[in-house]
Amino acid sequence: MSFRFGILCFPGVQQLDLTGPYEVFASARDAQVHLVWKTTDPVRSSTGLWLKPDVTFADAPNFDLICVPGGGGVNPLLTDEETLDFVRSQAKTARFVTSVCTGSLVLGKAGLLTGKRAATHWNAMDLLERFEAIPVAERVVRDDNLITAGGVTSGIDFGLSVIAELMGQDEAETIQLSLEYAPAPPFDSGLPDRARPEILAAARQRMAPSREEREALLPPIRQLSRA
Amino acid sequence: MSFRFGILCFPGVQQLDLTGPYEVFASARDAQVHLVWKTTDPVRSSTGLWLKPDVTFADAPNFDLICVPGGGGVNPLLTDEETLDFVRSQAKTARFVTSVCTGSLVLGKAGLLTGKRAATHWNAMDLLERFEAIPVAERVVRDDNLITAGGVTSGIDFGLSVIAELMGQDEAETIQLSLEYAPAPPFDSGLPDRARPEILAAARQRMAPSREEREALLPPIRQLSRA
Repeated sequence: MSFRFGILCFPGVQQLDLTGPYEVFASARDAQVHLVWKTTDPVRSSTGLWLKPDVTFADAPNFDLICVPGGGGVNPLLTDEETLDFVRSQAKTARFVTSVCTGSLVLGKAGLLTGKRAATHWNAMDLLERFEAIPVAERVVRDDNLITAGGVTSGIDFGLSVIAELMGQDEAETIQLSLEYAPAPPFDSGLPDRARPEILAAARQRMAPSREEREALLPPIRQLSRA
Repeated sequence: MSFRFGILCFPGVQQLDLTGPYEVFASARDAQVHLVWKTTDPVRSSTGLWLKPDVTFADAPNFDLICVPGGGGVNPLLTDEETLDFVRSQAKTARFVTSVCTGSLVLGKAGLLTGKRAATHWNAMDLLERFEAIPVAERVVRDDNLITAGGVTSGIDFGLSVIAELMGQDEAETIQLSLEYAPAPPFDSGLPDRARPEILAAARQRMAPSREEREALLPPIRQLSRA
């Protein structure tokens, strides 16, 4: 019987958060990958690519794995009870509850990160504390059946880790080889502690509007955690 | 004035060949990224994800960069004169002619690789000789205004290299940081000389049907190159 992956596909999703793990999951033997949303109308990603959900919340099966990607479109989800209810409901039966990038904030708002070790995009790491999660600056973080990934491209590393867990390391390595995943970034600026200060400042500036909006939507920092 | 990227978006494209560079290009300042095909009807990628071309061959502007991604859907393109003509026509005016993965075979069939250094997916590297190209087993290969990438995930490295070339290294590094591109593959099997023999055999076996079909569509190996 095939393993059913459900990836939340919402307006303003960062498409590479979704398409990276999608390609890894869909390359596995006996895998079904679904994009799930309120309707099956096409949704526009944060950089303009159109994506097509193939199953609605109402018609979705109980997925074996539920994954919430990130992106600017995460912000409206933080106060969207219909979506938060769907994620909570899937989390009850899924074998793995997962996220990529700022998708972890949706898991947090759904109450699924309390006391858990979790990752997110480097520019949102401190926000995990708003949900009483334990921020971990790693690319893929597992805590029991919760698997969260860092920013955007970490979704590929995450996908391979998940496949290894579910189907064994041989399957993950075969997919890695077929996707020629032997990355060789031309520069070494993929993390804040590696990037030059002016690059870090530029990246923060570009993300500032979305982050400010997001901060206002999140629960305040608990007094306790400041003590 | 913004830089116009045109990415060929055909049925059976390997979506990560396309979505990786797309996200890098579209994250740049002053960039317009278009998916171009014969019609703007949605096309289904090799692993099932639907993509939506936004401009037709007939309506396409002269792109500053034309990119042909790969995937199983490359095979029909090798005998598709309408597509080959479109690629040739764009190549005449584009500042850069590019491909990811087996997209290079389409460039080859269009006559654009003769005598040029080029990359492709590791499992298609020998096929480049059918076009009198010089195969180079690197992740991103530049020969004059031709930039070709290796398999699938190399499209991200390729995208950053292109942005650095067009807009400077600072812009590329800022995008790398925003996409948190500090890859950490959980295994080291992304290339044939790194994978275990049984993994290599399994990957070759999965790709064999598409490769056999492809070989039959390509020009024969020249007698000269065997001498």
